[in-house]
Amino acid sequence: MSQIQQSFQVQFSYNILFTENLFAPENTTLITFLNNFGNHYGANQFRKKILFVIDEGVAENHQYLQEAIKNYFANQEEIELVADILVLPGGEQVKNDEIYLAQTLRAIDTYGIDRHSFVAAIGGGAFLDMTGYASAIAHRGVKHIRIPTTVLSQNDSGVGVKNGVNYFGKKNFLGTFAPPVAVFNDSTFLKTLSDRDWRSGIAEAVKVALIKDLAFFEWLENKSVLLAHRDEESMNEQIFRCAELHVQHISSGDPFESGSARPLDFGHWAAHKLEYLTNFEIRHGEAVAIGIALDCAYSFLKGMISEDALDRILLVLENLGFDLYHPALAENDKINLWKGLNEFREHLGGRLTITLLEGLGKGIEVHEIDFELVKQAVDYLEKRS
Amino acid sequence: MSQIQQSFQVQFSYNILFTENLFAPENTTLITFLNNFGNHYGANQFRKKILFVIDEGVAENHQYLQEAIKNYFANQEEIELVADILVLPGGEQVKNDEIYLAQTLRAIDTYGIDRHSFVAAIGGGAFLDMTGYASAIAHRGVKHIRIPTTVLSQNDSGVGVKNGVNYFGKKNFLGTFAPPVAVFNDSTFLKTLSDRDWRSGIAEAVKVALIKDLAFFEWLENKSVLLAHRDEESMNEQIFRCAELHVQHISSGDPFESGSARPLDFGHWAAHKLEYLTNFEIRHGEAVAIGIALDCAYSFLKGMISEDALDRILLVLENLGFDLYHPALAENDKINLWKGLNEFREHLGGRLTITLLEGLGKGIEVHEIDFELVKQAVDYLEKRS
Ligand SMILES: NC(=O)c1ccc[n+]([C@@H]2O[C@H](COP(=O)([O-])OP(=O)(O)OC[C@H]3O[C@@H](n4cnc5c(N)ncnc54)[C@H](O)[C@@H]3O)[C@@H](O)[C@H]2O)c1
Ligand SMILES: NC(=O)c1ccc[n+]([C@@H]2O[C@H](COP(=O)([O-])OP(=O)(O)OC[C@H]3O[C@@H](n4cnc5c(N)ncnc54)[C@H](O)[C@@H]3O)[C@@H](O)[C@H]2O)c1
Ligand SMILES: [Zn+2]
Ligand SMILES: [Zn+2]
Repeated sequence: MSQIQQSFQVQFSYNILFTENLFAPENTTLITFLNNFGNHYGANQFRKKILFVIDEGVAENHQYLQEAIKNYFANQEEIELVADILVLPGGEQVKNDEIYLAQTLRAIDTYGIDRHSFVAAIGGGAFLDMTGYASAIAHRGVKHIRIPTTVLSQNDSGVGVKNGVNYFGKKNFLGTFAPPVAVFNDSTFLKTLSDRDWRSGIAEAVKVALIKDLAFFEWLENKSVLLAHRDEESMNEQIFRCAELHVQHISSGDPFESGSARPLDFGHWAAHKLEYLTNFEIRHGEAVAIGIALDCAYSFLKGMISEDALDRILLVLENLGFDLYHPALAENDKINLWKGLNEFREHLGGRLTITLLEGLGKGIEVHEIDFELVKQAVDYLEKRS
Repeated sequence: MSQIQQSFQVQFSYNILFTENLFAPENTTLITFLNNFGNHYGANQFRKKILFVIDEGVAENHQYLQEAIKNYFANQEEIELVADILVLPGGEQVKNDEIYLAQTLRAIDTYGIDRHSFVAAIGGGAFLDMTGYASAIAHRGVKHIRIPTTVLSQNDSGVGVKNGVNYFGKKNFLGTFAPPVAVFNDSTFLKTLSDRDWRSGIAEAVKVALIKDLAFFEWLENKSVLLAHRDEESMNEQIFRCAELHVQHISSGDPFESGSARPLDFGHWAAHKLEYLTNFEIRHGEAVAIGIALDCAYSFLKGMISEDALDRILLVLENLGFDLYHPALAENDKINLWKGLNEFREHLGGRLTITLLEGLGKGIEVHEIDFELVKQAVDYLEKRS
């Protein structure tokens, strides 16, 4: 028997640019990026096209936005804004109902967006997940620009490499690993977030600080009350530091997750289950805050961290305004929650790998979880709440 | 304005294994691969699952196949064949009708195929394109094994990194770049191919030889009559050499096609158009043979190759049994064909890049094509036919 061996590497690069008022006429961040992009391929002899898709939740709160985009591109020579701006619902709905994916693909086709043209999406994490997926599968990938508008999408989901939609009633059943060509984090959008969405994304910062960066955790401890009171400067710093840790993690690890370990999923096994058990009535970040609290309580009960450390963690989350207990945790004698662990293992494929804490800023992987201790951890949170 | 730079590389490796009677009990090629796969992730503590999907055209001609697969896996410890084998139509139909994609996804869900389990597809190029796409998008990519059963899929499409389905009536509108984890080229399947499908794929070998490898072209010249008469040894050698050139090309170039150049699309601008103009009544390889003939005639008329070289090329194709002219080439005063050039440019995105010949075994990229010469090239082929 003979064989041929194939082996190659593919390079992925993109920048996350932090700015304000992205579409103000004097802000050249976006247009500079677009004009310079891809010139090394000699593609610049052609007018590149760009299609914008906007999250309805953003469009409603930023009524000037579509006009501003049109003005911004009005006199551009090298780049052509296509005739329409597509506005679609935001939130989980856009990932649940296939019609929105189909509409995005239809627009890509109608406006002749090819592999060298851009789809720029402005919206929350759910919106970016759907539009990123559409961009990844159309023509085997058109250029995707992310303009995240929630805290969670600016510090976590929008700076990463994953997209997805829900299918067969399963979250992210369809999706790909497909880095964007650029991310523009515009702090202006955050002003119109509800308090819940403002807070929700901060849970991801607590998560990444706890497993990787004690100094950042202590910074969050100091700023937790300011953050809860919508201090914009603290928010911007939080987003930058969290995004940076996230980005470093991806490039230093296993970007397309070929292995089973997922340290960034700290606190997420319970969070995912809780989202389902509450029928997605709680936000992803709210579920993550509870998931973190649970895995930290477990780490304490297992003797891995001190009660003092646990208390500091729970206090940060409480100061931020999170509830750390939800009745769904205890449903059906906690068996519903427990099922989430097996589902998480199946989702990873193969071996169960859960990140716990062995100290503040220090995650550790374990491969077994003790149901009795999980139950006690739930009770611990209930008592404290 | 601040920024974070992200940059990383992802490694892709897979082998193409040549064998006969892949599912004979004594053939350990596949099971050895499966048992060894992924052990470095510690995933082998679990019984991996494998789902088979089979092209109906193959299933009908190899009635023993499903039984053989079941026997092959009957006593395996480390790998579990899921309860059903899925049989779906082959040919372009499977890429045209969404129902088959949905059925494949449904089976992936039903049988709990996760990111560490396998979808093994047995079939022609169209079948592998659809099943490869389903495997790439389910759970952001489950492990995909290709078992190509046509000449074209064994020497070209099945050893590469692309998949796709048709959408909005457009060929490959949806797809991704997603390497398989392994390819098993089993020569046994080729015996049941129709003469058209046996011949069709050889056009891809002529293509790659002409642009890259004079010695291989001369080998094809010598073997063309034997190949046309279904000599299996020559066929196997042809497939190996063509696959090897294809694989080298991918790894030495731009595997996920971020640029505009596509040397392996030599002869393909006209071929794609011809497939549409004939409503896909001619096979991809048959269209490619005509496309090669046309671009070679054009290269001659443009003074890039001698008439002697052109004659040798056309003779090889004729000896293989290809028609080198089709009335659709001349339709509408050749304007229909000409439109294909612009569509090809749009498909590449940006600048027109066409490969022509400057000698046998030597392709060269050009960025302009002269319609008058294209017309003459069509007439040249018509006269010769
Ligand atoms: N791809 C990944 O790696 C990844 C990681 C984590 C989470 N996610 C996904 O992200 C989603 C959650 O994202 P999210 O937390 O950003 O919430 P979201 O996208 O669900 O948005 C929440 C609500 O806020 C609205 N909204 C968005 N921006 C606004 C603004 N500036 N002002 C006012 N309203 C605004 C939206 O319309 C929506 O109604 C989930 O689907 C989750 O699965 C993806
Ligand atoms: N992904 C890529 O890089 C790439 C490259 C080139 C072509 N393609 C695609 O490949 C497709 C063409 O593939 P193809 O030429 O293999 O033809 P095909 O897949 O259309 O198959 C042709 C016919 O042969 C039948 N068949 C398959 N194997 C058989 C066997 N062993 N015995 C008897 N019948 C058999 C099929 O059922 C079908 O009816 C097109 O859709 C084309 O777009 C893809
Ligand atoms: Zn999260
Ligand atoms: Zn081809």
